[in-house]
Amino acid sequence: MTSALPLDLAALQAARARIADSVLTTPLWANDPLSRELGAPIHIKLENLQRTGSFKLRGASHKIDCLLRAGQAANGVIAVSAGNHAQGVARAALVAGLPATVVMPANAPLTKIESCRSLGAEVVLFDGGLEEAKAEAERLARERGLAFIHPYDDWDVIAGQAGVGLEIIEALPQAAQVVVPLGGGGLLAGVALAAKLQRPDVRVVGVQADAVAPWRHFLADGGIDAVPAGAHTIADGIKVKQPGALTRQVIARHVDAIVTVDDNAIAEAMVTLLERTRTIGEGAGVVGLAALMRGLIPLSPEAPTVIVISGGNADMTLVGRSIDYGLASSGRLMSVAVLTPDSPGRLATLLGLVAGHGMNVRHVEHRRGELHVPVGMTEIILQIETRDFAHQRELLEHFARQGLQARNLIGSAG
Amino acid sequence: MTSALPLDLAALQAARARIADSVLTTPLWANDPLSRELGAPIHIKLENLQRTGSFKLRGASHKIDCLLRAGQAANGVIAVSAGNHAQGVARAALVAGLPATVVMPANAPLTKIESCRSLGAEVVLFDGGLEEAKAEAERLARERGLAFIHPYDDWDVIAGQAGVGLEIIEALPQAAQVVVPLGGGGLLAGVALAAKLQRPDVRVVGVQADAVAPWRHFLADGGIDAVPAGAHTIADGIKVKQPGALTRQVIARHVDAIVTVDDNAIAEAMVTLLERTRTIGEGAGVVGLAALMRGLIPLSPEAPTVIVISGGNADMTLVGRSIDYGLASSGRLMSVAVLTPDSPGRLATLLGLVAGHGMNVRHVEHRRGELHVPVGMTEIILQIETRDFAHQRELLEHFARQGLQARNLIGSAG
Repeated sequence: MTSALPLDLAALQAARARIADSVLTTPLWANDPLSRELGAPIHIKLENLQRTGSFKLRGASHKIDCLLRAGQAANGVIAVSAGNHAQGVARAALVAGLPATVVMPANAPLTKIESCRSLGAEVVLFDGGLEEAKAEAERLARERGLAFIHPYDDWDVIAGQAGVGLEIIEALPQAAQVVVPLGGGGLLAGVALAAKLQRPDVRVVGVQADAVAPWRHFLADGGIDAVPAGAHTIADGIKVKQPGALTRQVIARHVDAIVTVDDNAIAEAMVTLLERTRTIGEGAGVVGLAALMRGLIPLSPEAPTVIVISGGNADMTLVGRSIDYGLASSGRLMSVAVLTPDSPGRLATLLGLVAGHGMNVRHVEHRRGELHVPVGMTEIILQIETRDFAHQRELLEHFARQGLQARNLIGSAG
Repeated sequence: MTSALPLDLAALQAARARIADSVLTTPLWANDPLSRELGAPIHIKLENLQRTGSFKLRGASHKIDCLLRAGQAANGVIAVSAGNHAQGVARAALVAGLPATVVMPANAPLTKIESCRSLGAEVVLFDGGLEEAKAEAERLARERGLAFIHPYDDWDVIAGQAGVGLEIIEALPQAAQVVVPLGGGGLLAGVALAAKLQRPDVRVVGVQADAVAPWRHFLADGGIDAVPAGAHTIADGIKVKQPGALTRQVIARHVDAIVTVDDNAIAEAMVTLLERTRTIGEGAGVVGLAALMRGLIPLSPEAPTVIVISGGNADMTLVGRSIDYGLASSGRLMSVAVLTPDSPGRLATLLGLVAGHGMNVRHVEHRRGELHVPVGMTEIILQIETRDFAHQRELLEHFARQGLQARNLIGSAG
């Protein structure tokens, strides 16, 4: 197949070689527990372990290398980003010895601002939307003679991201399917090129978040869907409303399917990734896993599917919440409401009974004076750590034997 | 140096080659953020990403390989363990096509029991202490003709764990210091042998948990400290009261220092590892990092120190708690008590004020009828997600300007 696109396999390989010292070759490992659960060989590309926590470092490093070779980055580089692209550009510039300026929204998480600063970047905080921030960055670029680095719509950036695909085919030549998160399209375009230019039979699938899915019908009719203002997803790294023009050319030609997943599926995938690989994926990073867990992508029991986990810069608060969600949905956390006479010693008795089952109490709350609580009674709400759903049933049956009315508030054991 | 120990470098290399298909070569990566924080080049060996979640797979795989070559495992293998060793033996036996029996305490976490079962092992649950479980396993071994696999006190097991050390010296020949978790001593002995037999100048340090530290004075006087009954640590993977006899010979000869860390330091290290590497370490796995963060091990600003993160099978509940601890200690979670008149609309006003600072409220609680709350007033306790300590101070100053009495209950912004 002769490609009319400006990137051929040699160009991708050259890009990879140029940035080999700056980026990590991330692990691509078969995952036994996931393979058993999904009934097909699943391999995970842990790009969330990349330096700066995402694949963005690859594209930024390659772009800066190209600018330097062309003598176009003498005064430094500039980028607009609330997240991973900013950190990628900051580190790539630091390694190249170039000054970097990063325009970030004023309400960006402080950890990300600090991360860019600690990488030596000048952070310009900007009050306003992404479009205004872009205009501000372009103004600064002109004023200071800085080279602007686009997060995805640039052939040099796409060639850099393609390294993820080259590493996949190199480590697992028999890969049959590769599943990749999709926002602006830089990573998907790069991986699709790297895969298809070597192995045209490999199936390449992009995954968007339900709430922000401009690519939803793109493969069917080439159209880009409008995204409602204020649309929100926990996959903020792929919350891109305007896909790239260059990435569209590659995706139209080389991507086989695009699917979307909702935020609940994404949160579950975060927990599953944590438990099955002991690594953190951010929302945008785990959409591929979420799509497989929801059965949205056909799997072959014989042929390996690769899931690219593209980034790991998750907000720790969200990680904590996802863990609780995962604990509850797997029977390891329960909330139970118990009705008892409102007299001394009842709570102690109740807690003794819970302790007898080897359970740990996290939280206790009393409710009185509500219509479902008879006068003279009190409702005690307990949040308890349990071993599994059977363990929860044990406790509920014990309550019943003692004549205690108990309602299970979360979990599915009651 | 001629070694009187039965393992030489060739034996370690042979062990590594024999199990190369069963175990992963785990990443050894320089960690920029930690190097900046600690002021010295820090490299992390992510053995928490090993299959089954810990280094134990290496020793178990090599032992089974040795048994098979000696024709001593025809009927299968047996092990006693509540955790990582059980999973390592189960997987190693599965790969070798041997039946595995694992004796586990009846109160072992269900996830670990399930993990062994899904790896094809027969799990025998045993009500009683570890010593009784060992006796039961020995009885079963005799009765069924099974080969018993010790978790650490076996030269073949130690040779298997040495692979961690071989990989370190191969990937980072200029390593100056290696810091390793220490329980029974299998991993430390293996790593020390692999390092010192190639590079006698490398410093090797073992780290124990404060509460269970039988090796505390071992290097000074060769003695083993008694561990109090009921001693507890969140580093349960190294909660070993009786060090090995063989591991003692290696450690006496090849280990330069042994230090201990408390559980608070271990919990902080879990959060730091999560934030800096995006991987989970279990308590026992992160003691080396904890020791460095507490300044217990001298670092050279020029020479690289390697931290071995030995395992990642952390209880998710503990991970969730550690995250909250980390959020609070870094200014991203605060609890504040505000005294207001007990009249309609006050809570709404208060929450509006908090929202105006871009903060998210996690939990609200009212306190009345306590001596520190004047009659007619109510104390509202808010748990709030904040950006940093400065953000928390902003809110407290705003409260003060409104004439509201507020007490900061956690964090250090007040």
